[in-house]
Amino acid sequence: MSAYTALCLRERERATLGSTASLLGWDERTYLPAKGQAFRGDQLALLARLCHEQLIDTETDDLLQQAENEKLSDAEKSNVKGIRRLFDRAVKMPTELVVALAKATSAGQNAWEPAKHNSDFASFQPYLETIIKLKREEAQAVGYVDHPYDALVDEFEPGARTKDLKTLFTGLQAELVPLIAAIQESSTKAPREILARNYPVEQQRQLSEWIAEQIGFDRNAGRLDVTVHPFCSGIAPGDCRITTRYNEHAFAEAFFGTLHETGHGIYEQNLPSEHFGTPLGTACSLGIHESQSRLWENFVGRSLPFWKANWAKVQGTFKTTLQDVTQEQFYSAINDVRPSFIRIEADEATYNLHIILRFELEQALMTGDLGVAELPTAWNDRFQKMFGLKVPQDSMGCLQDVHWSAGLMGYFPTYTLGNLYAAQFMEQARKDIPGLEADIASGKYLPLKQWLTERIHSQGQRYSATELCERITKQPLSHGPLMNYLKGKYRGIYGV
Amino acid sequence: MSAYTALCLRERERATLGSTASLLGWDERTYLPAKGQAFRGDQLALLARLCHEQLIDTETDDLLQQAENEKLSDAEKSNVKGIRRLFDRAVKMPTELVVALAKATSAGQNAWEPAKHNSDFASFQPYLETIIKLKREEAQAVGYVDHPYDALVDEFEPGARTKDLKTLFTGLQAELVPLIAAIQESSTKAPREILARNYPVEQQRQLSEWIAEQIGFDRNAGRLDVTVHPFCSGIAPGDCRITTRYNEHAFAEAFFGTLHETGHGIYEQNLPSEHFGTPLGTACSLGIHESQSRLWENFVGRSLPFWKANWAKVQGTFKTTLQDVTQEQFYSAINDVRPSFIRIEADEATYNLHIILRFELEQALMTGDLGVAELPTAWNDRFQKMFGLKVPQDSMGCLQDVHWSAGLMGYFPTYTLGNLYAAQFMEQARKDIPGLEADIASGKYLPLKQWLTERIHSQGQRYSATELCERITKQPLSHGPLMNYLKGKYRGIYGV
Repeated sequence: MSAYTALCLRERERATLGSTASLLGWDERTYLPAKGQAFRGDQLALLARLCHEQLIDTETDDLLQQAENEKLSDAEKSNVKGIRRLFDRAVKMPTELVVALAKATSAGQNAWEPAKHNSDFASFQPYLETIIKLKREEAQAVGYVDHPYDALVDEFEPGARTKDLKTLFTGLQAELVPLIAAIQESSTKAPREILARNYPVEQQRQLSEWIAEQIGFDRNAGRLDVTVHPFCSGIAPGDCRITTRYNEHAFAEAFFGTLHETGHGIYEQNLPSEHFGTPLGTACSLGIHESQSRLWENFVGRSLPFWKANWAKVQGTFKTTLQDVTQEQFYSAINDVRPSFIRIEADEATYNLHIILRFELEQALMTGDLGVAELPTAWNDRFQKMFGLKVPQDSMGCLQDVHWSAGLMGYFPTYTLGNLYAAQFMEQARKDIPGLEADIASGKYLPLKQWLTERIHSQGQRYSATELCERITKQPLSHGPLMNYLKGKYRGIYGV
Repeated sequence: MSAYTALCLRERERATLGSTASLLGWDERTYLPAKGQAFRGDQLALLARLCHEQLIDTETDDLLQQAENEKLSDAEKSNVKGIRRLFDRAVKMPTELVVALAKATSAGQNAWEPAKHNSDFASFQPYLETIIKLKREEAQAVGYVDHPYDALVDEFEPGARTKDLKTLFTGLQAELVPLIAAIQESSTKAPREILARNYPVEQQRQLSEWIAEQIGFDRNAGRLDVTVHPFCSGIAPGDCRITTRYNEHAFAEAFFGTLHETGHGIYEQNLPSEHFGTPLGTACSLGIHESQSRLWENFVGRSLPFWKANWAKVQGTFKTTLQDVTQEQFYSAINDVRPSFIRIEADEATYNLHIILRFELEQALMTGDLGVAELPTAWNDRFQKMFGLKVPQDSMGCLQDVHWSAGLMGYFPTYTLGNLYAAQFMEQARKDIPGLEADIASGKYLPLKQWLTERIHSQGQRYSATELCERITKQPLSHGPLMNYLKGKYRGIYGV
């Protein structure tokens, strides 16, 4: 057996162990009884330790070095390169730090839930302090060139640098702010109240399950469950689980939330399973992952053609609720733009400002320029400047997201990267697929899904995110396609 | 740190890994999507291998030897003894045999399902032949004094011997057969048709959840889900999951099935969690485990006082279905006794004959006195002698149970041991708890639950099953209490 094959088998075994941790994580958020929480932390910490130990074992090192000297195909070379990247990062992480992080983030998430519920930052503060301290240690251990934040972003978006993100986001913000202001000043107001009418949960559930299947989610290789905070977990080959949530007076939450998670799910379901456990069988980056969810949620799901295909179905599902509503009013309602407090409820334009806010605060937390105790004030001040709104309570401010409690620092930028990639991919798809709009307008999603699978899903980590983008679109990532898309859409709705 | 402490920590870690396998097993039967099945096998095989490797590691051996020479309390000594037992059995098993058994039983279960469905023994025969051959090898590897079957029973009922079981079961059978015959000859017939009326699933679900909580199942430390084959899985501290099944035309399936699994669940929930992962935190034996399920299902759940407390609730739940039924008729219906083909549907009296039949056939299969090819004929002949019924097809005979296909030989006797232990414990509880019947008749189950927790649940494997029984009841296990109980109950119903 070649060292390359042995290395892949070894990594596949590690991924198998990792996949059991994924199932435990899914279960923790769906079905775990309350008193089982404490021990779940022990289970996850053990699995994290075993995975870490297997990765940094000298056996991996030996196989890597041997495989790097074998004659390999380009795809195999990129696979070895990806494993090398994981190994090099992991050997720099002391095992005690890995275990401490697993425990602190398990405890952190448990503390965050009631803290958010009661808008009680003080009860969460000590947990977050521990996590931030450990994340700084992680950055020091892993190493970086420019900024400690680079070391964290790199885990989610391999190769991304803080300074490049800053350039990209600054350019985006400069065009976004005047567009949002123009929409605010427009006399056209979207009738978003429509979406808060009565939408019975059972019908929402049926509609969500239906639309997930329509756009290509395989229910025999996955599930759709209900959680407070929706997510997608690609557990193992043939087993990808997404979740959504139903609120009788919030049509958009479940419907667009389901489209979003389904976009992630379709990516996971179409990774090449023969490469499971190795970089070639793993999603490229979180930015690319988010591009898939955003593409289906917004670029498809909030488009005119999509509602040409689905308006009758949705109106028929909620007969009494929507009988006096036109397709145009509904389309306008789901594309309402206005500054608001909650990131996950934000529209396509203001959403990116929420990310930029977090991106800046995370950098300051990592350098120590911002202490955890000052986080609520810093958040609220900055929020008022960016959105012109005064945050009434921390549950609508710095406590709203689970990420920090789970140790996910450096993760937020991938959301805006996702929007940018989605726009650039979609611009290209329109060129490559003749009649794409007509397909979507007649409920045909397969051509787009196949285009995405061929170019993105099936490639795994064969190329880096930036390489992948340039291969597909012949251009480096920029804020141009997203701004063109947003301007075009809102010109139609708001006349701006 | 003492060797004893280190040994316990090591075993606790192994149990933590094992608990993740338990969750995967639960998920496989509840929520796993179809296409995830194949990979679930890989996950479980990996975890089984890791657990086995950790147990037989020289580190365990060293710690055991050191701990055996330390000054320990009696409880600690019994803990070391229990770990020694696991270690000695595991090291005797050649790895090739462990692997061969894992493969044969995985293939066996896959072959059994369609074989049962099509009542096609021939298609299952080669798989069962392989399994029986390997189980004989296991008995040789593990070792025994009297009978190869001892080596298998010992895994489920530590210390139990075939010859002792034979004595116990022969005595039971001698009294059971005439009692069943007398009931058959009685002119009183239980109106069991009542139980096949229409019981809407949603109301059954509410009733099952309610009764599980009533008798003491902690829903914050467990769940009740739905599966084709009900089971209980004590996954980890604070996390015990039971399942049931709902059939609109079978009241008894869900209600008594839930009581049964809840009995198991209460045992698991009240094991001392500080000893999790070591024998002191583990259920005593499968016979003792089954005594807890049977006690709540039958000795409480099918008793007159229980229905005094709950008849109004149940009748009120199924108003139109039960409006013309009296409490006496219902009590009689749930205590119908008559020979039938399917073990899991059998009444409290005939159930034990189903076990004795399997107990005898398993011994003959292990010695080789009975070849697998002759199993259907041997089953059917013996069945006709014991039950006076001609088995119409193997799916209602030797193909009905999953156990043999899964390699669970020597498991069946623990079901009747459970009935015997339950009777003997209940007889003692009546002496120890003044007003027990009155408690149950007013829906108060806590005194009985506390009595069980104190004497049984909290003890883990501190004592062997036979020791535990003698400590609690001051007598060795015998068939007397069960026969007294059955005779008393059926005298009341059938006048026999």
